[in-house]
Amino acid sequence: MNYRIGLIISLFIASICIVKGQSPNEKIEKLLQQMTLEEKVGQMAQITLDVVGKGQTRFASDEPLALDPDSLRRALVDYHIGSVLNTANNRALTTKKWYEIISEIQKVAMEETRLGIPIIYGVDEIHGATYTVGATMFPQQIGQAASRNRDLVRKGAEITAYETRASNIPWNFSPVLDLGLDPRFSRMWESFGEDPYLSTVLGVEMINGYEGEENNIGDPTHVASSLKHFLGYHATVSGKDRTPAYISPDALREYHLPAFKAAIEAGAHTIMINSGIINGIPVHANYDLLTKLLKEELGFEGLVVTDWADIENLHRRDRVAPNNKEAVRMAINAGIDMSMIPYQYEPFCEGLVELVNEGEVKMERIDDAVRRILKVKMALNLFEKPNTHYSDYPKFGSQEFEKAAYDMAAESITLLKNTENILPLAKSSKVLVTGPNANSMRTLNGAWTYSWQGEKTEEYAGQYNTVLEAVQKEIGEKNVYYKPGVSYKMDGAYYEDHLDGLEEAVKMAAKADVILLCVGENTYTEKPGDLNDLYLSDNQTELAKRLAATGKPVILILNEGRPRIISKFEQEMDAIVQTYLPGNFGGDALADIIFGDVNPSGKLPYTYPRYPNATISYIHKPSEEQKKAEGVYNYEADYNPQFRFGEGLSYTTFAYKNLKLAKNTFSKGETIKVSVDVQNTGKRAGKEVVQLFSSDLYASKITPDVKRLRRFEKISLAAGESKTVTFELTADDLKYFDATGKAITEAGEFELSVADLIVEFELVD
Amino acid sequence: MNYRIGLIISLFIASICIVKGQSPNEKIEKLLQQMTLEEKVGQMAQITLDVVGKGQTRFASDEPLALDPDSLRRALVDYHIGSVLNTANNRALTTKKWYEIISEIQKVAMEETRLGIPIIYGVDEIHGATYTVGATMFPQQIGQAASRNRDLVRKGAEITAYETRASNIPWNFSPVLDLGLDPRFSRMWESFGEDPYLSTVLGVEMINGYEGEENNIGDPTHVASSLKHFLGYHATVSGKDRTPAYISPDALREYHLPAFKAAIEAGAHTIMINSGIINGIPVHANYDLLTKLLKEELGFEGLVVTDWADIENLHRRDRVAPNNKEAVRMAINAGIDMSMIPYQYEPFCEGLVELVNEGEVKMERIDDAVRRILKVKMALNLFEKPNTHYSDYPKFGSQEFEKAAYDMAAESITLLKNTENILPLAKSSKVLVTGPNANSMRTLNGAWTYSWQGEKTEEYAGQYNTVLEAVQKEIGEKNVYYKPGVSYKMDGAYYEDHLDGLEEAVKMAAKADVILLCVGENTYTEKPGDLNDLYLSDNQTELAKRLAATGKPVILILNEGRPRIISKFEQEMDAIVQTYLPGNFGGDALADIIFGDVNPSGKLPYTYPRYPNATISYIHKPSEEQKKAEGVYNYEADYNPQFRFGEGLSYTTFAYKNLKLAKNTFSKGETIKVSVDVQNTGKRAGKEVVQLFSSDLYASKITPDVKRLRRFEKISLAAGESKTVTFELTADDLKYFDATGKAITEAGEFELSVADLIVEFELVD
Repeated sequence: MNYRIGLIISLFIASICIVKGQSPNEKIEKLLQQMTLEEKVGQMAQITLDVVGKGQTRFASDEPLALDPDSLRRALVDYHIGSVLNTANNRALTTKKWYEIISEIQKVAMEETRLGIPIIYGVDEIHGATYTVGATMFPQQIGQAASRNRDLVRKGAEITAYETRASNIPWNFSPVLDLGLDPRFSRMWESFGEDPYLSTVLGVEMINGYEGEENNIGDPTHVASSLKHFLGYHATVSGKDRTPAYISPDALREYHLPAFKAAIEAGAHTIMINSGIINGIPVHANYDLLTKLLKEELGFEGLVVTDWADIENLHRRDRVAPNNKEAVRMAINAGIDMSMIPYQYEPFCEGLVELVNEGEVKMERIDDAVRRILKVKMALNLFEKPNTHYSDYPKFGSQEFEKAAYDMAAESITLLKNTENILPLAKSSKVLVTGPNANSMRTLNGAWTYSWQGEKTEEYAGQYNTVLEAVQKEIGEKNVYYKPGVSYKMDGAYYEDHLDGLEEAVKMAAKADVILLCVGENTYTEKPGDLNDLYLSDNQTELAKRLAATGKPVILILNEGRPRIISKFEQEMDAIVQTYLPGNFGGDALADIIFGDVNPSGKLPYTYPRYPNATISYIHKPSEEQKKAEGVYNYEADYNPQFRFGEGLSYTTFAYKNLKLAKNTFSKGETIKVSVDVQNTGKRAGKEVVQLFSSDLYASKITPDVKRLRRFEKISLAAGESKTVTFELTADDLKYFDATGKAITEAGEFELSVADLIVEFELVD
Repeated sequence: MNYRIGLIISLFIASICIVKGQSPNEKIEKLLQQMTLEEKVGQMAQITLDVVGKGQTRFASDEPLALDPDSLRRALVDYHIGSVLNTANNRALTTKKWYEIISEIQKVAMEETRLGIPIIYGVDEIHGATYTVGATMFPQQIGQAASRNRDLVRKGAEITAYETRASNIPWNFSPVLDLGLDPRFSRMWESFGEDPYLSTVLGVEMINGYEGEENNIGDPTHVASSLKHFLGYHATVSGKDRTPAYISPDALREYHLPAFKAAIEAGAHTIMINSGIINGIPVHANYDLLTKLLKEELGFEGLVVTDWADIENLHRRDRVAPNNKEAVRMAINAGIDMSMIPYQYEPFCEGLVELVNEGEVKMERIDDAVRRILKVKMALNLFEKPNTHYSDYPKFGSQEFEKAAYDMAAESITLLKNTENILPLAKSSKVLVTGPNANSMRTLNGAWTYSWQGEKTEEYAGQYNTVLEAVQKEIGEKNVYYKPGVSYKMDGAYYEDHLDGLEEAVKMAAKADVILLCVGENTYTEKPGDLNDLYLSDNQTELAKRLAATGKPVILILNEGRPRIISKFEQEMDAIVQTYLPGNFGGDALADIIFGDVNPSGKLPYTYPRYPNATISYIHKPSEEQKKAEGVYNYEADYNPQFRFGEGLSYTTFAYKNLKLAKNTFSKGETIKVSVDVQNTGKRAGKEVVQLFSSDLYASKITPDVKRLRRFEKISLAAGESKTVTFELTADDLKYFDATGKAITEAGEFELSVADLIVEFELVD
């Protein structure tokens, strides 16, 4: 058999070749020449940590966690597995434990395998080092997007990279560059929200933070990032995770691709594939998307990894492959380099070897995949320095890092309503704190925190302040009353809650000057987070109505991964503050905003719907908000969300004036320079996000979007201070895509708007 | 100028040519040769009746309605307008009035225009002759689909054609062949529901009913049908009318095209275009769909008409045309033959003449359009017999016709729940009839009844029985208590209702043995019917809960155009009966079912959702109902609607046995014959719909649907009787479409199922 001959030749080459003193590419090519087919295929396989942990089955490990040497050798030595991911038992580990575990794996990989290739370890560290005890937990991406603060986003990623490396982990499955355009979707909060430009800008900042400006991921404070989930992951028809999406070629390029394109240009080393189905084809089997678009057109030279079990899913779930081997053929030929298997690696490894021997998968495809994998390992300097030791990371969990997480929380929290400036509250106020989210570290963080669904957070985050605790610290325990009224079922589905002292909470309101009602969602992600009803739960709605009926002012604090409908009681609330999922310092940041130590400056990164079946984002076509037609058939459509994309109040006020263009006509080669004056017209310093939108009034090939965000800048203004903000656009910013996906820059009339100001110009050929 | 020379030549030809004694095609070609460009363009223009009615503006007419001779001559003589549609003042007319109005228009067209071409008059007669006083109103299409009765569907269309012709109208904008796959959509009830096969089969029956088996629409009891709305009209992302849809090539052909394809093969004479936007392109501007697919690939030789104002909409709404003239260019070049303008015809006519003279629209395109229009006029025999007189239609509104409408209502009503066989009720029962739909002819009929939104029904339908009246007739007034509890705002938006004696209704329950709670929706269609919240209204939900709390059994009667969510109280209801929009005899049919004179046999033509954000139809991919995966990440998805497609109970029971295939392997050329035994195992006669589904277990190009309806047959069984039902399939029934829209018949494993029985077979090449 061919592969046996290959094995012998490879062994021979290996014995005379020492991979040193060569360029990385030379090293990789040498290594490739030495590798047997089985070794190559093993590099393409990724298993989850439980597979090599001591325990009764592959699906769980004993506690305390220890590796099982036999399982480890079987995987790494016998099957040549090249990558491991995830934690074991779905539980955070200390940096010390991480070091022990991963260095033991590396030892086997480098000392007991024939070629000594290090494994690459990857984890989802999506808002700080998720699975490391004591790591600094930032607001989730949706809150980071609300901050509109590029520097804080980059800094957060730098810290996460540092703490990930402190955990001896060099590869982070982050950032999420999916467009978070569907409020029903269970992972909306993992995205930067519904705007492609915002996702693009902040995505690049995050990659620069993870990988460094020069993408020198060999630096032991950097990690390899993984763009995910390529692409269109949130655009499902049903709103449920991993269900079919229909995306036209123009929409793919107009909305879903830009953030990935920019991130690839920013040098991101790896990418994870959308676990879903687009236009009937599972993305993991889509050659056009993975090879023609991603690898050829975008020129992505990094590593393409599947999401969890997604090759198996081609058979088991989506039924495009009649067996697992056929699924492997489809995915690898479509362009997958590494399979996140994660449990049953034997069928993948054996199947892929057979497929190559049968000519169903070409050796060039295998070599391409392995080359990409080895390149990342090389770039991470794993051959030279396979481990990073926690003792070299003194700043892990430091006050400096915590301050950065606090700052991000403080800039993300978004004031949506403030009737008669009821906020900030006087520190002498007597406050009733209530609601299921009032005393929970779990809900402040969301999922992907110490565990997958976030259910173990209370075990690990006791030293941080819940909203209740932060308010108690701010104004003294004696001024704070607390009763949840409603509580979540902590071991149930995320959507299960129950009355928990509602009557007592309502009675307690009599003693308070003001009510801080903390509602929202318990934690979830992926399929367990699927949603059937976008309304806030009945119990929480009842609590809100009952509290409002007391006549005491109610400050509604939202703590939720997606915008749950509040229209049944919103009008009875005096103020509304959206905290998103602000992380371990969200309680402190919120208390500082509520009592005026911090002036809020967050802006909604999505549209907050008013009704469960009216969930269109701010990016939409004119037909979604039709004006009255003449005659008998009045086709009037409303677009009337609860809160609009970009909304967010301050404790001061800002006035916009003098939106100006240098001229009214621009040719396509010219720079379109637009400026606007912004003044702080209130009595305290504040930060304002200046947002520039464009509207293409007519577009001949595709009905144009009503408006699109093109630039933004967050500025600080002292009371009374003015600044002129200048933006530059090019014709390329005004392009759109036709039905075939071809870019078009079309002459015609355009509008630019900032706040309520509008200017028009004409673009000419 | 060219067209003046053309005019002179045409006049000359006209003067020497008499259009008689020739074949229809020869006549059309002769006529075309005589026509000026202006005359041709006029044929392509359709105006609404109000434009030529006496009145202050074009948008309304004085009452009583009379034509304005100047407006009429300006339109028909000066602008050569070839078609008129709709009623005036949005109000039904008598057959006599229709005759007067249309014959007066025809007189001007035939006697005062140079070429004497008759106009073609079209109206939306979608469940009977909508706009004719005294016409027979059938259940709306959604109910007709629930009947699964091919003969009744065809008969209903025959009667509608007859009564339309009795109104001197030869052209009916019906049937709707849109797939009603979205419970949020305002016109779901105008469709045959969510299944392509059901829509295909019943669509063909309806066309045969309208046009006759031989499509001899010159017969004055037949009308030209108009398939609508070509295509994909209901598939919007937002669920709102006339908003963007994304449809992949495979979904277009798999789901949306079949009913249109079959209808075109059945000889339908005209087609109306989808007013919406698919993949960014307004369908009215889509050459690929209108010309390449419809006219070339499907070979449609009939007349293509726009929907209301849809050429203007290319400019005004969708902004793909910077002005109206450009909109005309786009639409006509895309393949539109006739523009339903409907008010401002001058810009269309003048613009199109200019476009031809400028070379922007070719004369061949104009000739093609006019040829198609004249062909329909010729086929309708309008040149010879431009009018049909009501006195020739003695069966108009006859008891025979009313019986057909009653029969359809009786077979459509669907029993969804019947706890402990509470239904049928004894006629000695004392009944509380309540709910906003209890005493309304308007809600029984839905929109497109005597007026567009159905708001004028009470004026015209006084002689028919509401649910309340029918129940009173059935069991005597003294046994019936009535209080609405909740009422609709009759001059407001369809979704506005208010408490109306709720406490009294609850009190009244004490006197009754059983409660008949009639809930649902007020009437709506198109954009005024857009929905934001799929839950049944809060007031109706409260009424249901309050009545259930009395402890008296509650029979929930649903009377609604789409399935409004009832999960908040469904468990407290003892029985549930869906009436859809059953027409003027729906009250009678319902009462006969409730009290056991009729055994119900309707089957749901759609999936009834349980939650507002879980609205996937029965046709879905395996990923919508994922089973638990192994390991820590439990990706479990539910598919758990309130009621499933095809559900519907009877007062008797049916047992299925012996689902049999002749063999286990079929080659692609063979007929797949499958049979099943069905027995009536209960104590009374009943009708049962036997439904055959297929499942393609694996499909290599597109993730396959979980199952699909392939055949059905409605059978009658006496108590104890058995029948064997046999279905035949071919490999063509098992084909699917790949991502490019190419049909594929793929070898592999398939399942066939009837009720709970399943057989498997293999298809081989």
